[in-house]
Amino acid sequence: MSADMDFIYGVHSVLETLKSGKRKVLQLLVEVRKRNNAVDKIILVARQRGVTVVKTAPGMLDKLCAGGNHQGVLLKAEPLSLLRLNHAVELSRGDKNAVWLAVDEITDPQNLGSIIRSAVCLGVSAILLPEHRTAGISPAVHKAASGAVEKARLVPVSNLTTTLLTLREAGFWIYGADMSGTPIQKAQLNKPMVLVIGSEGSGLRKKTAEHCDALVSIPQSGGGVQSLNAACACAVLLYAIGQKG
Amino acid sequence: MSADMDFIYGVHSVLETLKSGKRKVLQLLVEVRKRNNAVDKIILVARQRGVTVVKTAPGMLDKLCAGGNHQGVLLKAEPLSLLRLNHAVELSRGDKNAVWLAVDEITDPQNLGSIIRSAVCLGVSAILLPEHRTAGISPAVHKAASGAVEKARLVPVSNLTTTLLTLREAGFWIYGADMSGTPIQKAQLNKPMVLVIGSEGSGLRKKTAEHCDALVSIPQSGGGVQSLNAACACAVLLYAIGQKG
Repeated sequence: MSADMDFIYGVHSVLETLKSGKRKVLQLLVEVRKRNNAVDKIILVARQRGVTVVKTAPGMLDKLCAGGNHQGVLLKAEPLSLLRLNHAVELSRGDKNAVWLAVDEITDPQNLGSIIRSAVCLGVSAILLPEHRTAGISPAVHKAASGAVEKARLVPVSNLTTTLLTLREAGFWIYGADMSGTPIQKAQLNKPMVLVIGSEGSGLRKKTAEHCDALVSIPQSGGGVQSLNAACACAVLLYAIGQKG
Repeated sequence: MSADMDFIYGVHSVLETLKSGKRKVLQLLVEVRKRNNAVDKIILVARQRGVTVVKTAPGMLDKLCAGGNHQGVLLKAEPLSLLRLNHAVELSRGDKNAVWLAVDEITDPQNLGSIIRSAVCLGVSAILLPEHRTAGISPAVHKAASGAVEKARLVPVSNLTTTLLTLREAGFWIYGADMSGTPIQKAQLNKPMVLVIGSEGSGLRKKTAEHCDALVSIPQSGGGVQSLNAACACAVLLYAIGQKG
């Protein structure tokens, strides 16, 4: 993938990108032998938007997607426009119930994509993505997010702890997901808030945890299995936060 | 993978399989250049259990795991012993609050593994796995389940609708996850119950939905993104069910 071009594959991701119209799409590549109703619909939408449709030889998309499950379609598009922190804060200023999400050291693209998808489905206003030790928005992330990347407000941050301090000054409460925390259903939560999700293997980094107003957990009964996967934990916590109104 | 031998890879899955002692382990294969503390712990546990440890040449595990992220360790073990339906019902008979899970057409191994992991973490008593149109318990499922496969009560069923009828006669209430259902937090739920999770793409099959006492959904705010991923939806529903006591 070129640095100034995104590859987006899979029928949901491709269709959402075309429909959202948020960025310029350069080309739609279609593998003819994979055509079906979903692919035909994508071709139709692409043509309506004036996007060039190119039919590719068998195997070409496999190569471009490095083994990812492209389902016969690939878009070449301009890079996603990301939001700057102060702009995201500005957009969120009127919303006293805003819930933001920060991911810390989520390196698995499948998990990151799934987290972005859950965040959009469950009403998160902005997602903070540390530039180091976190997966980039790769084609695999697009695919796992099933189109949600186009709808999310993604905010790259160079230093998560500094960012959390800035947000706290801007009135946000910071909650970290950690097995040692208060069960989410019993926790006293204030908004606007940022929920911080750490890596599966080692949980929240100590430095990150220190910048949280409180740690929250999910009650688990599970005879020794360590914990939910990070994306599932994130979905449960966001649902539980939503239930608190 | 031979039909009468399971390959299990990844540090969590391998360690849980060794520790659970539920099935005979034939061999532990270790890629020496991947050794670290986690791998050393696995070698120690394997030796304590009398399991032969074999050091493999670089690249051998990559080949055996077909590209899966083995983290330097692979177990050859006897196949998992699965539970028969009537036996599972028998084991569950005293538990009036039992929650069972049924998966219908979950074909993605990552999702199935993640669902098994959530089910074990969130206290599910048994998991019904239709033999058709559902992913088998492959090495990729073991890996995604992060050891939870060893702790789950897995019940293969040849026909899901017949099984649901049998369970209803045995006193279970059947609830299906579907976007058109009652929001889970408002639903009146009775136990013992079976929660049925359908595929992401097309949701619950009509035939399956007809055998449910009610359909339940997750309230989503998400500007047009279709829905949560199946594994995340399953985790949220199981958490919400747990909250109802």
